[in-house]
Amino acid sequence: MSATDTTQDLSQLQDTFREGLEAHGWFLPTLGDGVTGLGPQAEDVVQGIAAAARKVAARLSPDAGTRRLRFPPVNGTRLLERTDYVASFPQLLGTISAFEGDNKAHRELLATYEEHGDWSAQLTPAGHALVPAVCHPLYAYLEGSQVDGSVFELVGECYRHEPSPDPMRFVTFRMFEAVCLGTPQEAREHREKWLEAGTNLLSSLGLEVQADTANDPFFGRAGKLLSAGQREAQLKFEILTEVYPGHPTAIASANLHEDHFGEAFSMHTADGAVAHSACFGFGLERVALALAMRHGFDTAAWPVTVRQELGLP
Amino acid sequence: MSATDTTQDLSQLQDTFREGLEAHGWFLPTLGDGVTGLGPQAEDVVQGIAAAARKVAARLSPDAGTRRLRFPPVNGTRLLERTDYVASFPQLLGTISAFEGDNKAHRELLATYEEHGDWSAQLTPAGHALVPAVCHPLYAYLEGSQVDGSVFELVGECYRHEPSPDPMRFVTFRMFEAVCLGTPQEAREHREKWLEAGTNLLSSLGLEVQADTANDPFFGRAGKLLSAGQREAQLKFEILTEVYPGHPTAIASANLHEDHFGEAFSMHTADGAVAHSACFGFGLERVALALAMRHGFDTAAWPVTVRQELGLP
Repeated sequence: MSATDTTQDLSQLQDTFREGLEAHGWFLPTLGDGVTGLGPQAEDVVQGIAAAARKVAARLSPDAGTRRLRFPPVNGTRLLERTDYVASFPQLLGTISAFEGDNKAHRELLATYEEHGDWSAQLTPAGHALVPAVCHPLYAYLEGSQVDGSVFELVGECYRHEPSPDPMRFVTFRMFEAVCLGTPQEAREHREKWLEAGTNLLSSLGLEVQADTANDPFFGRAGKLLSAGQREAQLKFEILTEVYPGHPTAIASANLHEDHFGEAFSMHTADGAVAHSACFGFGLERVALALAMRHGFDTAAWPVTVRQELGLP
Repeated sequence: MSATDTTQDLSQLQDTFREGLEAHGWFLPTLGDGVTGLGPQAEDVVQGIAAAARKVAARLSPDAGTRRLRFPPVNGTRLLERTDYVASFPQLLGTISAFEGDNKAHRELLATYEEHGDWSAQLTPAGHALVPAVCHPLYAYLEGSQVDGSVFELVGECYRHEPSPDPMRFVTFRMFEAVCLGTPQEAREHREKWLEAGTNLLSSLGLEVQADTANDPFFGRAGKLLSAGQREAQLKFEILTEVYPGHPTAIASANLHEDHFGEAFSMHTADGAVAHSACFGFGLERVALALAMRHGFDTAAWPVTVRQELGLP
């Protein structure tokens, strides 16, 4: 089969999947490219996966629940600078613009709108941006502090500007993350432990998964080197499943940041060394969709063990 | 006491409240003006209020749970046009900009950033915007459909560009909404029923509340007339509580939209008439903070009845 055939094939699989998701009330289309609402069954599954992940966290780190923090989907634009996101992943970021004009400026804005022009180009940067990864606000919150290998539990919403015909790729989606900040060894052990536990959880839900080294989509020519280096050093692993036969999709990832965030946000360990960090994350909507592909759109007909694991009504 | 004294007094009360929220781990400051993370106790209370609201919904409309939909915090910029938000509330909206340039454009972006310039002004509109009210995506989803007075249950995240030193005013916050689309009578009854039930729920949590007519902050000179008309017609009610003594703050609202959204999104009832709509919403963070002010920052010490109602651990 040629590359073109494979692409056509994949795009057909994606279309069929989206049609099924919409026909069965999993996807509720509205007006945004790459944005969809979720129906009651889909949302129950998303919540069930988050709850199952919290149970894993409680087993791996009994007091993680006491550090269950919640950050909103918006933060200061500075966060994109401080994490180096604007340098590394400019193609994915989203900043927020607002209207700060008077009556006259508003009349001009409305005139543009009525002429079907792009009125949003007349707005000015609001100082806010969308959060691209749920652990980023945590580092800003912990700035300057001493860390001890404790694990933080986060569920939050991410934005990544990559509209796509693939229903598995959302521009706005939720992640569960377990984040560890501590010594290099603590960070590495956290990543290993969660990579195994996360794989087991997904398997127990009936998914065929495998872990593999991966790289983030660093931007541009210079980014190619960064990607290669990240793969070489095995800093990023993804857990993949074949939602589309022959085309593995990542539904979870396990990342070692070394001292990247520790350095950027002046976090240190008891011995005064720069803190290392690691995170493990489930893409909640992606896991939910992988389960729909595996078990069908009617959660009432899913295997009892899966329904129990997810606490489905 | 002069107006200036009152303002100083209020601003001191707000500062003291924020300091308490931060000192007791309710607020987790990061980098965004008007944006804060929430600690475990605060988040448990937010979730508890949402769960209590769902119980009210189940009592008032036994099958509302089957229409528990979930829309993400981002949608198409068109949504702000279709709901008339850009005309009525331009000062509150937020649109999203993205980077769509090449390596050269990225170097320019980074140069601006390194000179501490506003690099986000070099981005271009992404076609996405923040959702300002959780019921707006619902109308887009239901576009063109026939409605029958059913109630939809939504929890979602809103963005409103109004950074403020008042901890009660979030630029990004969550709402629970119960939305009814149907005949004028069904919409009006929904609003009345929920205004009463919402007031009762808040009272049962120990808050001293009162309902009053209100208006949305329509923009500019023309907006003053719209505000007056909305008040005159009693389309909007708010449930207020004195988080700061002598200064009532709205923590919930009950709105009759008449045929505004029915018209904009071509929704109709069985008789072919344009659908009317009404929504009731709790500002989840605001209710949580009002409870912290009322009962203190340690939820373990809250009255047993309140803890039970919120399902606190």
